[in-house]
Amino acid sequence: MLKIGILGLGTVGSGVVTIINKHNQAIKRKVGTELKIEKILVNEKKKKREVEIDPDIITDRAEEILDNPEIDLIVELIGGEEPAHQYILKAIENGKSVVTANKLVIAKYGSEILKLAREKEVQVSYEGSVAGGIPVIRPLKESFAANRIEEIYGILNGTTNYILSKMTREERDFAEVLQEAQDLGYAERDPSSDISGSDAAYKIAILSSIGFETTIDVNQIFVEGIDTIELEDIRIADELGYVIKLLAIAKRCEDGLDIRVHPAFISKEHPLALVNDAYNAIYLHGDAVGDVMSYGQGAGQMPTASAVVADIIQVGRGIYHNKPEITIIDSTNDHKVKQINQVENLFYLRLQVNDKPGVLAKITKVFGDNQVSLASVIQKHKLTPVVPIVLVTHRVKEEYMIRSLEQLKQLNDVIAINNLIRVVEL
Amino acid sequence: MLKIGILGLGTVGSGVVTIINKHNQAIKRKVGTELKIEKILVNEKKKKREVEIDPDIITDRAEEILDNPEIDLIVELIGGEEPAHQYILKAIENGKSVVTANKLVIAKYGSEILKLAREKEVQVSYEGSVAGGIPVIRPLKESFAANRIEEIYGILNGTTNYILSKMTREERDFAEVLQEAQDLGYAERDPSSDISGSDAAYKIAILSSIGFETTIDVNQIFVEGIDTIELEDIRIADELGYVIKLLAIAKRCEDGLDIRVHPAFISKEHPLALVNDAYNAIYLHGDAVGDVMSYGQGAGQMPTASAVVADIIQVGRGIYHNKPEITIIDSTNDHKVKQINQVENLFYLRLQVNDKPGVLAKITKVFGDNQVSLASVIQKHKLTPVVPIVLVTHRVKEEYMIRSLEQLKQLNDVIAINNLIRVVEL
Repeated sequence: MLKIGILGLGTVGSGVVTIINKHNQAIKRKVGTELKIEKILVNEKKKKREVEIDPDIITDRAEEILDNPEIDLIVELIGGEEPAHQYILKAIENGKSVVTANKLVIAKYGSEILKLAREKEVQVSYEGSVAGGIPVIRPLKESFAANRIEEIYGILNGTTNYILSKMTREERDFAEVLQEAQDLGYAERDPSSDISGSDAAYKIAILSSIGFETTIDVNQIFVEGIDTIELEDIRIADELGYVIKLLAIAKRCEDGLDIRVHPAFISKEHPLALVNDAYNAIYLHGDAVGDVMSYGQGAGQMPTASAVVADIIQVGRGIYHNKPEITIIDSTNDHKVKQINQVENLFYLRLQVNDKPGVLAKITKVFGDNQVSLASVIQKHKLTPVVPIVLVTHRVKEEYMIRSLEQLKQLNDVIAINNLIRVVEL
Repeated sequence: MLKIGILGLGTVGSGVVTIINKHNQAIKRKVGTELKIEKILVNEKKKKREVEIDPDIITDRAEEILDNPEIDLIVELIGGEEPAHQYILKAIENGKSVVTANKLVIAKYGSEILKLAREKEVQVSYEGSVAGGIPVIRPLKESFAANRIEEIYGILNGTTNYILSKMTREERDFAEVLQEAQDLGYAERDPSSDISGSDAAYKIAILSSIGFETTIDVNQIFVEGIDTIELEDIRIADELGYVIKLLAIAKRCEDGLDIRVHPAFISKEHPLALVNDAYNAIYLHGDAVGDVMSYGQGAGQMPTASAVVADIIQVGRGIYHNKPEITIIDSTNDHKVKQINQVENLFYLRLQVNDKPGVLAKITKVFGDNQVSLASVIQKHKLTPVVPIVLVTHRVKEEYMIRSLEQLKQLNDVIAINNLIRVVEL
């Protein structure tokens, strides 16, 4: 028998309990022995639960699990930074293997945790931390082990993808769709971690650390959220053959790693453009395998629980047969992450200018002076004194683009710079 | 040091050697020790090779590898049934682990091979046997281990998908596109195994054996190829909102397993409809994870070699650390595969009839008599004595459809039955 302790009985925790109960026999066959939930840590012991649980195994004292010599495997599903981080370290210190879905803790403390796990000869698995039920961490480590991973593109946040899809399909404003997403439970009451892109940044930090065999500090990742995206940008993107997605990017370049999260114009023809609603996708390029994409439900109770229980089975099997999986994540490569101003992109720029002769000439001169070459300029005829202009540049380093913008702002006839969005060539 | 022997130095074999040479250091880090190619079996020792290889390690005698006590791991890349099958058994008998990309041998002799491997306590991996570089076998065994797999849909043959994509996009005939594919090397000189669907049948036999934890006899799988698909069918499919794909299907039903390979109308809106050219895709539904799709290059030298070398690394790591992966493929479930005549589908039927009053009434009466209900009937106006009619049925058991067809053939005014294609609701 393999005894496990679960920390946290929220949405994912309840899903894990449900799967373990439902697929009891199949799991036993796969682990080699019966899986028994010995203890579950909760905040409030008396709270009503969506799953039926023997009250005797519920505890509100973490030490009853972390220091319990009966328990071989700890499943951390509290989320957030602390106390999850300290609980994981304590579990490992006590010689227990750990399964977690905590992207924040793995992104921030992954190398510390994995180092300790190697010392203590226990296993740590975290498939559920990125892209819910879509297999991505194990494939990166194992299935693509023969490849040099060159590029990873991800739609890694379901909430923002839901909002952008809905804005696009229904031609509605950001604020309105966000409100509806909150009412329906697709977005949290405080949606800032999703909207700002930081949730996706944790996830791409984890994926790029594995894919590039290095340790990526999440603070080095440039992050921009979707709250500045207006319906007008989505409409123009559509006219130009693009959709707007919150894209997580990790690329090897000659002069460092290019890792970032921001809204991006991507071609409608690319498979990632078709990933809508709360779905997630990972598109990667390896030198042998070429392009591979996986897509599925990147969050939610059962998909995430699916990944967590798969980890429990895999780690549990290793414990039971006394053959722990060999974790090989060497931070062999000490890469630097490129500053965003050194990264090259095409850019989409939308601005408002006075409709006067010579204005366009002044604007294009600013770009010319800063080595920014324009691919297209769209000025729609309007019978108003102020008219919108949309520009798309050729490939150019961001610093030249930013310098151009600063100079544009100095021009009297430039009334407003509405939005600047990177166009990513996939 | 881990010494391996490779059987076969064709396209994939050369790719494997290339990757091992190129990523020597990374592979060493991942296996834990250096990987050395000790011997390679070839047909003709003197033949010119696309990769540079020390002539001393080339042999044309299989026993120099199979009976070599220095070699711990045999990589079988000869393909075909014999002698590959016997070589694999011999290697296992001699206590060696095996990596293979041989779909035919695994589909036909998988349970025999895995049983022997368990007895001899060696590992057998075969990720390269299905869908080239797309991770599918390992995810089915591990990443989706917490799921009951309900349905698997695959586009598993690159050659037929290339032909159908090209017919669709360029409005060209089957024979012409096949010829071009052969000239370009995308189709073999004898393309029958691809065109007939039997290649895809081997692959879905392997996937369903794993997904449903049983042993699927490939001879029980209904197979129909794409050689009867005419450009006219593709055009009509397009008008009706479908594309035609060679689909491999494996579904759990209440009365058995529904496993088959045949051309199918699938909705243009479904992600599988967008998988074009030589790309492969696997779309599956698990009870926890929901729908997940993976897509990528399903064949070809480097993608397949990517999967083979990943297996070599994984198995090699187990050998070196004396911690072989625990293979758990229990044929616990003794399912029966449903006869195709018991399977329900919608059907598309194209036929030629005399343009006379009352003909359509006679035809619809035949369907009515056989419990086949029609979803749509399209009769295009033509100024010819014989006119085409296209019918799409509602969901109906195949035996009723076949019976209707037999009766239709008896009608004097039915000149020809051009094609019957299943419509698969995804």
